[in-house]
Amino acid sequence: MAPPIADLREYLAETEDYRRIFDHLRYDQQTVLPDGATADRARQIGLMERRMRDRIADPRLDQLVAAVERHGPDPDDDFAAWAVARTARRDHDAARTRPVEVLSDFQVVAAEAFPAWRDARAAGRWADFAPWLRRLVDLNLRLADAVGYPDHPMDALLSAYEPGLSYAATDALLAGLREPVLRLNALRQQRYAGRPRVGFPDLDRQTAFAFVRDLTERIGYDWNRGGLAVSPHPFTSPSGANDVRFTLRDDVPFDEILTSAVHEIGHALYEQGIAPELWGTSAARGVMPWLHESQAKFWENIVGRTPEFARFAHGVLAPYLGDHPGEVTPESLHEALVARPTSVIRIATDELTFNLHILLRWEIETSLLSGTLDVDDVPELWNARSAEYFGAAPASDRDGALQDPHWCHRWMGLFTSYVIGNLVSAQLAAAMRRDGVDLEAGAEAGDFAPMLGWLRRHVHAPGRTFTLAELVPRATGADLGTEAYLSHLERRYAPDTEGETR
Amino acid sequence: MAPPIADLREYLAETEDYRRIFDHLRYDQQTVLPDGATADRARQIGLMERRMRDRIADPRLDQLVAAVERHGPDPDDDFAAWAVARTARRDHDAARTRPVEVLSDFQVVAAEAFPAWRDARAAGRWADFAPWLRRLVDLNLRLADAVGYPDHPMDALLSAYEPGLSYAATDALLAGLREPVLRLNALRQQRYAGRPRVGFPDLDRQTAFAFVRDLTERIGYDWNRGGLAVSPHPFTSPSGANDVRFTLRDDVPFDEILTSAVHEIGHALYEQGIAPELWGTSAARGVMPWLHESQAKFWENIVGRTPEFARFAHGVLAPYLGDHPGEVTPESLHEALVARPTSVIRIATDELTFNLHILLRWEIETSLLSGTLDVDDVPELWNARSAEYFGAAPASDRDGALQDPHWCHRWMGLFTSYVIGNLVSAQLAAAMRRDGVDLEAGAEAGDFAPMLGWLRRHVHAPGRTFTLAELVPRATGADLGTEAYLSHLERRYAPDTEGETR
Repeated sequence: MAPPIADLREYLAETEDYRRIFDHLRYDQQTVLPDGATADRARQIGLMERRMRDRIADPRLDQLVAAVERHGPDPDDDFAAWAVARTARRDHDAARTRPVEVLSDFQVVAAEAFPAWRDARAAGRWADFAPWLRRLVDLNLRLADAVGYPDHPMDALLSAYEPGLSYAATDALLAGLREPVLRLNALRQQRYAGRPRVGFPDLDRQTAFAFVRDLTERIGYDWNRGGLAVSPHPFTSPSGANDVRFTLRDDVPFDEILTSAVHEIGHALYEQGIAPELWGTSAARGVMPWLHESQAKFWENIVGRTPEFARFAHGVLAPYLGDHPGEVTPESLHEALVARPTSVIRIATDELTFNLHILLRWEIETSLLSGTLDVDDVPELWNARSAEYFGAAPASDRDGALQDPHWCHRWMGLFTSYVIGNLVSAQLAAAMRRDGVDLEAGAEAGDFAPMLGWLRRHVHAPGRTFTLAELVPRATGADLGTEAYLSHLERRYAPDTEGETR
Repeated sequence: MAPPIADLREYLAETEDYRRIFDHLRYDQQTVLPDGATADRARQIGLMERRMRDRIADPRLDQLVAAVERHGPDPDDDFAAWAVARTARRDHDAARTRPVEVLSDFQVVAAEAFPAWRDARAAGRWADFAPWLRRLVDLNLRLADAVGYPDHPMDALLSAYEPGLSYAATDALLAGLREPVLRLNALRQQRYAGRPRVGFPDLDRQTAFAFVRDLTERIGYDWNRGGLAVSPHPFTSPSGANDVRFTLRDDVPFDEILTSAVHEIGHALYEQGIAPELWGTSAARGVMPWLHESQAKFWENIVGRTPEFARFAHGVLAPYLGDHPGEVTPESLHEALVARPTSVIRIATDELTFNLHILLRWEIETSLLSGTLDVDDVPELWNARSAEYFGAAPASDRDGALQDPHWCHRWMGLFTSYVIGNLVSAQLAAAMRRDGVDLEAGAEAGDFAPMLGWLRRHVHAPGRTFTLAELVPRATGADLGTEAYLSHLERRYAPDTEGETR
């Protein structure tokens, strides 16, 4: 008779194959699928998702996990067996609290809400989207009620995806960024006021992508287990640790291609770094999406926006410039990455106020869920907060309350991953430094192995074994907080001695 | 209560989604998948195949089809219901005669035989592959025994995939081509002896593919339901009538890109042309692979190798030549397509002796199955036939008995699709002409709607509703034969009055 863990692994392998196929079919849809096949593909994705969900919620999984639990796997003795069983247990128990009807109703409403959002945005008319948001808020509340919560519906939405995140703690973390970010951004704007926008070479796609392949391979991305394609919005597809492809836009300025590539391979390095003994199980994925975002933010911001990284990237870039010497220098490359103007548009803004964009959405989401804000009054609050946080109200709802489509395809609360990811990225960097890793020297020399090795050991290898609330103290010795991130921002945007901005 | 046909359709829709996902995963593997993910993808493909097979062999399908049959659908009254039920019945009954163990054993042996073939070919050592071929022959015989046959094991292998094809009839068709092809090829070689090889522009991939997109759209390929990618061997992926992508090599001379494109969209037009009322059922695929090949051969050979098509294609090409005027003319383009040298390599040879390459393999396959040829003696027979058919024995087994990998991943008998496809393509063209379609005038004017419309009505729309043996007389008024094809070859390679070669 096979040992219990072998039976569990066999069961999970098929479940995970459905998930991997699901991920791949979505990837293909965003990169290659012809428009005419949209409805067919939606049905195929739905089929894979149902198979996967059915298996996770199936009582057989409960029995298989229970058999391993009775066997008493010990993390010190057989880490993989212990990790696989606890992850499967968490997923199975969570699946039972999330009613299939609510998940499925959300998909149906979301599928209609998205084009409604698109049209409302084009027309700049909030009233056209408001009825859809009302229905979406109701669905969020239905999920929260099913999951249950001690204090605020947001407790349920956050914990359904990331056990251990509470409304109150998250609210405190986000609010704690407001004043320091506003102060630092004023300093930053003062420093770069009136400086001309940096010019970049207009590389053709083939050359730009050859540069990206070269650069990302030097950082540690494994092209034998990856790939690069074009899509309207950059993303990374985790179709298994051996098939982690990422995408870029090819119709944006060079500095955006560069930061997008470094951001996406942050996601990809995480998936590629999961320990092989977990592959084929539900532990073998990055923790979605909070910790995942920390990995992208680490490479994009903590490393990617240093003058040392700009010098390294410029060295890699030089041979690709060909007939386009342009005016790009290591200094101008760095300046382009830190001097970006503040914008009322989230995806166009600078590193600092990006956090306040999330705070704004958090304030609106939590007020909608608690009933203290009506859907019709969203633009008024949005515009007031924009003036306060970004120095201007948007010209219209098109650039304001209608700028993001996320509410049409994600549960509320998931926006916070962008800020939590920032906090964690800085906390990890601080822990890494304490362990003797010199990030700046490594970036300048193009020697990323010490950083990547540290992340592999402390973050990537265990995959989903630990929740965010478990992993952060294990890896950094402290609970999730704002201190390390604020220090990082201070060092970069308010250096007290030298003029060089990190 | 839903009518029986609605229940059957619902059941088939899921079965077909597994098949479409299977097809797509294989397509992606041949175009984009990173090498590191090969084993994962093989497992995912296997999962989709098992789901599909299980559903086809499931007694539930028998019951659902029987309910429709009791309802008595009438082809004149409700063609789609009748077509869906009879196709599902055929698949279900056939699945029960093909034991899962044999199919699965074949996959296992084939997976090991392929690298053995590759290494044996590299070394030019037949003896290294012979033991694998012996095992593969045994597996072919096991399938034949399970299916049953009146006369020769090949009866079973052919009919397992295409009911109505017999060993004796197929043997007579193939043998009947031998003498005429040898005679015509001698004439052809005489005509083009000593002519210099035509020079072609060395277009970059982007330009060549832009030309292919333009050309194939003019022929009738729907880019809203298709796509083009690069792969080591060109193929068409039938992932549903709305997602029919094809691939090309990008490292071959221009005339090969042109003929490959026209060949592949012949396959693709078939899949895109299946009647929408059959989509989502097992009737909604081209008849594999015999009739399918006829569609590719029709466009590649019957239409694509005429001087009229060369003039049309040259007109489309002209704007893409840019700085590469080269020496290409309508006449040189046409000559390149008909003057190709005869080769002992199947995929490199001319239009005529391609048929004899299949005859050679057929003689070897049928002798191996009937026990009149031993595996060790294959190269001797191969070389003797090569000398007779192509005017030379191959320099080594590398270019002889080891040139094709097909025995490692297909059942014996399937090679005949290439010749049966040729016969059917000419028979369809003759019927089309009798119905008043002028193929040459249409090709010259770039007006392909009359040909394509005729094929849509008579061949594409019903999908797999009819077997090859049923469809050919329905569409052409005569059983499958060699007459039309030999007339086509005579007109092209032995024109009695004019010098122009069609």
